[in-house]
Amino acid sequence: MTDVKKAVVLLSGGLDSATCVALAQTDGYDVHGISFRYGQRHAVELEAARQIANFFDINDHKVTDIDLRAFGGSALTDDIEVPKDRDAADFTDGIPITYVPARNTIFLSFALAYAEVIGAHDIFIGVNALDYSGYPDCRPEYIGAFEVMANLATRAGIEDSQPLRLRTPLIALTKAEIINLGVRNGVDYSLTVSCYDPDDIGRACGHCDSCQLRSKGFLEAGISDPTHYQPGAGPE
Amino acid sequence: MTDVKKAVVLLSGGLDSATCVALAQTDGYDVHGISFRYGQRHAVELEAARQIANFFDINDHKVTDIDLRAFGGSALTDDIEVPKDRDAADFTDGIPITYVPARNTIFLSFALAYAEVIGAHDIFIGVNALDYSGYPDCRPEYIGAFEVMANLATRAGIEDSQPLRLRTPLIALTKAEIINLGVRNGVDYSLTVSCYDPDDIGRACGHCDSCQLRSKGFLEAGISDPTHYQPGAGPE
Repeated sequence: MTDVKKAVVLLSGGLDSATCVALAQTDGYDVHGISFRYGQRHAVELEAARQIANFFDINDHKVTDIDLRAFGGSALTDDIEVPKDRDAADFTDGIPITYVPARNTIFLSFALAYAEVIGAHDIFIGVNALDYSGYPDCRPEYIGAFEVMANLATRAGIEDSQPLRLRTPLIALTKAEIINLGVRNGVDYSLTVSCYDPDDIGRACGHCDSCQLRSKGFLEAGISDPTHYQPGAGPE
Repeated sequence: MTDVKKAVVLLSGGLDSATCVALAQTDGYDVHGISFRYGQRHAVELEAARQIANFFDINDHKVTDIDLRAFGGSALTDDIEVPKDRDAADFTDGIPITYVPARNTIFLSFALAYAEVIGAHDIFIGVNALDYSGYPDCRPEYIGAFEVMANLATRAGIEDSQPLRLRTPLIALTKAEIINLGVRNGVDYSLTVSCYDPDDIGRACGHCDSCQLRSKGFLEAGISDPTHYQPGAGPE
């Protein structure tokens, strides 16, 4: 029996997490994906996550229900309008309206439970400190602190010699670098959905912050943008 | 308008969390309770949490659905039998079978989201390092690491001068000391449920680890045990 190393990968259905799945497989990990139904406005994210899980034929893909709407506080879960056609770096108060309170902490906590149960020592999360510098829970110092806490939280902290690691292979990359890395590792980005305001069949609006970042990424990477846009919504 | 200080209190329906509600109110906090429906075997816990919330007339009480059963791994959520009639300190592998992987981390993550949305800077959790020394996520070093992480995870870490604090007023107390403290602060312990294996109307088995700890606590505190036991199940 070979000793397969397992990893839990947070899988949102977006470009970054699909890249993480590919990188984890390239590194030889047996991938266990986890996605969340958290009252997001766009359930098409989860369909994309399922397609990515199938495309990479990962070991298991758990979809966990959590209710972040109970607390409110974000344009991604509330009835606040998603901002359109603005400079992605222009946030009046330093934190984007699309920030969901403690979202990555909640997601990573579930990933930690999953990792502990299956005996995985690595959790991959596709956070990025460049494009999402306004999100407190995408910063390297946050990730480092979660890792310290996670090693004290679990059996591993008491019994095991092998520490749990948070793997953030995209944290210091530009969107163009992420796309190039993903393409080299076999990602089919047409399966991924990044848009904050897609239509019912997952086509992108082309105008929200996330669409603008993504479109600029493909342009800078010199790779043809495979995104499915709503009619008339694609880049000029 | 007075500047009321808000606190989020994790409310399980048990003896410890009820004591935390009382202590937070005594400290002048406007209490916001949070409980979880997490596939626990005994939903009577949640009914007890509701009764405690009503008894203390707290500002709000959120009950959040999460599915820990999806990951398995504990006698409290699986079909593993709850151990009975053993010495509570006698765990063959150092960690009790009733430990739920990453449970406190998940609970605290939701409490963190709630705190951020309502603008609370204090989260009370009734962890205890003496009686639950086998649970990695009840240790002071774990709590400290979560607090560090929490302050990096949220808006507070970027915008706010007032840090978020985890309050663990029971962490170094014996069960008898907790009971005495609670009684002095107005807790009606007949409302609380500690049993790992209660019947449908919340009556305690008297034989699981938690019942034994609780019963011993009342005995040592010199306070008459108000627990509702199943017929024939009470202490001798």
